[in-house]
Amino acid sequence: MQNPFKIIATTILMANFATSSVIAASDPVADVTAALHREVMESGTAYENLRELTSLGHRLSGTANAERAVQWAKAKFEAYGFDRVTLQPVEVPHWIRGNHELGSVVSNNQTTSLNLAALGGSAGTSGITAGVIEVQSQSEVSRLGAAVRGKIIFYNRPMDPALANRFAAYSGAVDQRSSGPRTAAGLGAVAVLVRSMTTLDNDDFPHTGMTNFSGGTRIPAAALSTRSANQLSAIIRNDPTAQVHLELSAEVLPPVTSYNVFADYLGESLPSEYVVVGGHLDSWDLGQGAHDDGAGVVQSIEVVRALKALHIRPKRTVRVVLFMAEENGASGAREYAKQASLNNEKHVAALESDEGGFAPIGFSGAFGSMRSRIDLWQAYLNPVGPMIFRNGEAGTDVDPLASLGAICYGLNPDSTHYFDYHHAANDRFEAVDKTELHRGASAMAIMTYLFANEY
Amino acid sequence: MQNPFKIIATTILMANFATSSVIAASDPVADVTAALHREVMESGTAYENLRELTSLGHRLSGTANAERAVQWAKAKFEAYGFDRVTLQPVEVPHWIRGNHELGSVVSNNQTTSLNLAALGGSAGTSGITAGVIEVQSQSEVSRLGAAVRGKIIFYNRPMDPALANRFAAYSGAVDQRSSGPRTAAGLGAVAVLVRSMTTLDNDDFPHTGMTNFSGGTRIPAAALSTRSANQLSAIIRNDPTAQVHLELSAEVLPPVTSYNVFADYLGESLPSEYVVVGGHLDSWDLGQGAHDDGAGVVQSIEVVRALKALHIRPKRTVRVVLFMAEENGASGAREYAKQASLNNEKHVAALESDEGGFAPIGFSGAFGSMRSRIDLWQAYLNPVGPMIFRNGEAGTDVDPLASLGAICYGLNPDSTHYFDYHHAANDRFEAVDKTELHRGASAMAIMTYLFANEY
Repeated sequence: MQNPFKIIATTILMANFATSSVIAASDPVADVTAALHREVMESGTAYENLRELTSLGHRLSGTANAERAVQWAKAKFEAYGFDRVTLQPVEVPHWIRGNHELGSVVSNNQTTSLNLAALGGSAGTSGITAGVIEVQSQSEVSRLGAAVRGKIIFYNRPMDPALANRFAAYSGAVDQRSSGPRTAAGLGAVAVLVRSMTTLDNDDFPHTGMTNFSGGTRIPAAALSTRSANQLSAIIRNDPTAQVHLELSAEVLPPVTSYNVFADYLGESLPSEYVVVGGHLDSWDLGQGAHDDGAGVVQSIEVVRALKALHIRPKRTVRVVLFMAEENGASGAREYAKQASLNNEKHVAALESDEGGFAPIGFSGAFGSMRSRIDLWQAYLNPVGPMIFRNGEAGTDVDPLASLGAICYGLNPDSTHYFDYHHAANDRFEAVDKTELHRGASAMAIMTYLFANEY
Repeated sequence: MQNPFKIIATTILMANFATSSVIAASDPVADVTAALHREVMESGTAYENLRELTSLGHRLSGTANAERAVQWAKAKFEAYGFDRVTLQPVEVPHWIRGNHELGSVVSNNQTTSLNLAALGGSAGTSGITAGVIEVQSQSEVSRLGAAVRGKIIFYNRPMDPALANRFAAYSGAVDQRSSGPRTAAGLGAVAVLVRSMTTLDNDDFPHTGMTNFSGGTRIPAAALSTRSANQLSAIIRNDPTAQVHLELSAEVLPPVTSYNVFADYLGESLPSEYVVVGGHLDSWDLGQGAHDDGAGVVQSIEVVRALKALHIRPKRTVRVVLFMAEENGASGAREYAKQASLNNEKHVAALESDEGGFAPIGFSGAFGSMRSRIDLWQAYLNPVGPMIFRNGEAGTDVDPLASLGAICYGLNPDSTHYFDYHHAANDRFEAVDKTELHRGASAMAIMTYLFANEY
């Protein structure tokens, strides 16, 4: 596009047409939110903090790396001059991958390597070889019944590529990973392979994630890269007698104590009322947890950094909470809500960022009773870009705070590429864009300010 | 994020909270729009067509490359079985860059190269050397008055990086490029350098674009990469006597005849009522015009490909219009509107895609009288993702159709990275993401169908 002069009118009319929300010319709140946006975009440190955090390596709960991240977070909060920093003990699972993972399929004396990664919670195996059955669903496994015994079950139903909301596509497929192994184990399967949860069809990265045996028999279970899943499917279609061989060094160790890390920027007049903004500090052990959820961690810290840089102290306390163990069971979220309840802490609102560091497109949450206020507030987000409020879930870590009366909501970035990186070795610092990350942080700063001072 | 089961509620409640628009369970229109989305996402050819189109090289109006693009478009329309294909003659400017561009600054016997590209419409020079004055605005040039004579004026006001809507940032800076050279020439400047229109602060690509001398003295005028602009600024701050040397082989040739290319998919019951969807076929001569505006070209073609693939023939005629010469004067847009008016063609609506092939976030246009209908239609776009309708400009190429009574509107993709590539050598096929491009095409297909059949 070329014509510069025609654009100006579009710029002026940024208000959402549907709501027609506008800001009065002399609205002092708009001055604050515009200044917050400018501060984050011009002087934000979220991106550089993400570079630091990801340089520590992965942050899988229970590991020494996760503890290094706890110390990093504590030191960072202290460096930014938060009024109070807390390490809250949490019991977390301790599953480790180990350093040996091998998979292959043999058909007609030809061996083909399979690119795989054990699922969190998987049993290890020093070597298992069995025939393989490809299925599209857990109900198909149940129908197979006795035929499952002694076999390796291969779940291969893809995420629906037509769903622009990738989280909807994930919802439609991830049961294969989260409970598919348990279902197969219950019928005597010796191991499970799952097509990776990504919309990339010929991806070389296996995408791990939690699987839950719920006290049933724990068996080896691994994610296949989608390219390997396609290869395996083609091989067993031609040769149903093909044998898969698996070696996994995964191991379940006793639970350990880790920490939620949170820090308070005390409110001016209502310091015992909390407005939470947070993400989870842990990550999977492939890659660096940059989008999931390093982004949410550094965006949340940025909210208070920007407020302090502008010498804005809202009425209520802004608390940045970095939750532990979101990826394997969310014990951090439960513990945080439990302690908040025991301590009778009044939580007014809680915002989570755990959908990646991509360009923000809105927020989802339980806004039901807030509709008229949201209509007013939407205009304050105009500097960030068009932002839509949707009724829906907020996020795993803040959801338990709804029972304390908090309005819980989550940042929604564009999800097109989230599952290109999710739980995979390429979820690294380089996968995050500074401008997109900071736009999200700006949106979070504006909403947090509104709840902390204008609610 | 991890918890898969919590996501489902979010998915179901995709409707924009602000409008609460929902689709009745048995709405046949929703079946069509959902099928269109699926067709584009699963079987769309826009991305492969973009690969073909960009492989022709740039498509600057007046050049042989642009004529190759005209022939490509004609052949493509014929291959897809459009009912009628038209080449509409248009007189277009013929400016060429030539193959020699050099810039440098000499200070204290040290020569520093400047990375630059002539602006469209620039005069050539076999060699000019002069002192340089850095300015932030045209009004500053006017105030300098006689001091401008014999000098090279260097406009160096950056695009505002805090504006998430990059088009607003562009609007706020581009006068330096579009009319800054004319202002400086009027006061006797011998040449003009302009900081490239990009928010990247240390970018190595010069970003070209049109400059307009409006019949005044044509002087050499070039865009500097932002890195070179930063260097030049630092050098002349230390040494105001530094001399800049420029050589540009640019040349203005006599206008030539080129073509708008358009094709009709005839309506079932109202074939003489037109619903236009289009973009511009020409591009700048750096790079391949992939985002600007190869994306809009192939998305527009995809609209009819998808309708035909699903055997959907709307009531009204869908016309795909590929405009010529948008980049240097928009004579194609004027000629199209003029002929449509002369032929008394009824244009019901016109949609333009010319803001890049990034993830779609909404539409802007003159929707004033359509508000209640837009509220109803918004839900049909849910498969694409959250889409916001804004009042604002539609686009350079469809705007003239408003005087024919058409509702004119434009696709708004996320603009974060548009000006990373705009008018620069890196605007190549590789810069476009297939999923994002196809989501935009799906949104365009849905809106075009609604105007063609449900309006």
